[in-house]
Amino acid sequence: MKRIVILGASGSIGRNALAVIESLGPEFQAVGLGARGDWRCIAEQARAHRVRHVALADPAAAEALERAEPHLLVRRGPDALERLAAEVESEIVLSAVSGAAGLGPTLAAIGAGRDVALANKESLVMAGSVVTRAAREMGVRILPVDSEHSAIFQSLRAGARDEVLRIILTASGGPFRTRDRAALAAVTPDEALRHPTWRMGPKVTIDSATLMNKALEVIEARWLFDLEPDQVSVLIHPQSIVHSLVEYRDGSLIAQLGIPDMRLPIQYAFTYPERRALPDARCDLARIGRLEFFPPDDDRFPALRLARRALEMGGTGGAVLNGANEVAVETFLAGLAPFPRIWEVTARVLDAHRPVPDPTLPDILEADRWARLRAREML
Amino acid sequence: MKRIVILGASGSIGRNALAVIESLGPEFQAVGLGARGDWRCIAEQARAHRVRHVALADPAAAEALERAEPHLLVRRGPDALERLAAEVESEIVLSAVSGAAGLGPTLAAIGAGRDVALANKESLVMAGSVVTRAAREMGVRILPVDSEHSAIFQSLRAGARDEVLRIILTASGGPFRTRDRAALAAVTPDEALRHPTWRMGPKVTIDSATLMNKALEVIEARWLFDLEPDQVSVLIHPQSIVHSLVEYRDGSLIAQLGIPDMRLPIQYAFTYPERRALPDARCDLARIGRLEFFPPDDDRFPALRLARRALEMGGTGGAVLNGANEVAVETFLAGLAPFPRIWEVTARVLDAHRPVPDPTLPDILEADRWARLRAREML
Repeated sequence: MKRIVILGASGSIGRNALAVIESLGPEFQAVGLGARGDWRCIAEQARAHRVRHVALADPAAAEALERAEPHLLVRRGPDALERLAAEVESEIVLSAVSGAAGLGPTLAAIGAGRDVALANKESLVMAGSVVTRAAREMGVRILPVDSEHSAIFQSLRAGARDEVLRIILTASGGPFRTRDRAALAAVTPDEALRHPTWRMGPKVTIDSATLMNKALEVIEARWLFDLEPDQVSVLIHPQSIVHSLVEYRDGSLIAQLGIPDMRLPIQYAFTYPERRALPDARCDLARIGRLEFFPPDDDRFPALRLARRALEMGGTGGAVLNGANEVAVETFLAGLAPFPRIWEVTARVLDAHRPVPDPTLPDILEADRWARLRAREML
Repeated sequence: MKRIVILGASGSIGRNALAVIESLGPEFQAVGLGARGDWRCIAEQARAHRVRHVALADPAAAEALERAEPHLLVRRGPDALERLAAEVESEIVLSAVSGAAGLGPTLAAIGAGRDVALANKESLVMAGSVVTRAAREMGVRILPVDSEHSAIFQSLRAGARDEVLRIILTASGGPFRTRDRAALAAVTPDEALRHPTWRMGPKVTIDSATLMNKALEVIEARWLFDLEPDQVSVLIHPQSIVHSLVEYRDGSLIAQLGIPDMRLPIQYAFTYPERRALPDARCDLARIGRLEFFPPDDDRFPALRLARRALEMGGTGGAVLNGANEVAVETFLAGLAPFPRIWEVTARVLDAHRPVPDPTLPDILEADRWARLRAREML
């Protein structure tokens, strides 16, 4: 049996993960559920999946949950998710908290020797060297849950590592793919929240519209698959059917395709190295009819350029990119900054940063704090 | 070092195979060259690749070659290729003779315990049960050289065999993909010989135009990958970039993509399980821009229906489909039958056949003779 702890259970990935566990049957069991503060959701999920161990970072929410469901073992407070990941016996911890808050729980899971199904890309963007070193030392696997990284992970099975020329992450291009700069300047939060293919939380949705999501994924991929920065490229593919590709040195591209459905990469992370049946997930290419591919336009959408700059910078560069972007997105969502300011501010914070090479976790957290402060000042 | 015997060296696959061996460097060496009758080509290839063992099925051509290149060891006559495959020490025999004539040499190679790189699809279409049984008994591998089957072979690495729902062979659809029935009736041999993507011999080119090539590949795939007939499907893909796909039970499609270049699958068969660099083989999806997919139209192009009928029939059905089609194509190329007669005659011969279940090789050869005779009578 595989026992799974879900961090970020109330989010879209967490909910999909529970649906996957349900459909996989009794060999897979959720044994821990953690979230920030949505205690009603956790209460319901705990009941439906007979989970006793839960965690809520928000103490008030934790108290409400304890009152409502007295039989639950509720961990609470800022390190509640870390403790859930470390203390509850499990084979896999799904790290699906969104944003920088996911880093601590990811490291706690690794430190406890659990395989990590990683949806929280910030863990690797901010602290790729620290997280991958910890995973190596503990002998645990990091299993990608992003559809793109799962596609790469699957496609890498078709060859040896030294046969890989590069990987190609596909990007939908977001809802504003065809807009010119002037039109981009006029994008409102409401507009940006209508994403064409995937239903996700607001932060990721904005990141998809700016292509910052892809920029973070480039950095994530570099760490996840231990690649040189120039081995990670991006291809715009509006239909989001080809989830990503690996280019081998014989010119072969191996790709994973499928309907845009988060259950697929989540399930693969849970069942790996096996594949299990997944209901209603078949992808009919004849019906889809057409797949398109475009080079990314770094002038209109400078996010990928920022990713490359952060990768060249190394050290704390990723943490700064991510921290500055998080603040810029919040500010945009609050209606307090125009859409292109997200790139501008992130670029300026990155430019102002003096990276710490081979950083420790405190170095990284300090760089994150610094980046957020600088971004707020600029905004 | 891998020593390779090439049967069908003067054809397009044979020539590409020698180019691949050349570019792979000294670890790969051609050690035998066989063809029907193009002795000048064989003489030149033998010189360029320092090969001493050659074979020509046509005795007059063999004599001419012996006179021109007295140092060569020339096998001659109807079983010359069989003897070359069996007698010359090698790690791989590339079976790339075209048509039914490839069956004997393929079996000879297997019987001698050589791994076979199989480009001659007729070996499996006619005698799939006999050939695969012989390969199992001898413990040799059959490595696909068709781009479609190579794509499947590569994509199967991304999962276990019992996780495969089905395979999807792509087909360019041929040059007449968009024609209606009336226009198909008017197709001339000249027109049909202009194939859009792959440069091949006349027989295969006509088979691509009728989709009979894909029909034969469906039967080939059923044997090569030990699948049920309903696990092999076909998808029209005019760009010929996605070379084929495997659908796994979790809904994932794993595909191999690349430029349409025979060197790629040939090299993969030679270097398997490794991948080596292949010059000028990179596939730039952003430049290609668009990939299209259509369901095959069995009414205008009934070849796939014939393949399914032959597979249901089992036994000698494949041999009859292939034999009748070969005669029909010859007749069409000679200008003596309209284009749609190829399907009609093949269908009628297949209908008239009483299949021999679990056939021996003599049963198969007899069915092949019978089918050719019936096809000639009808034409």
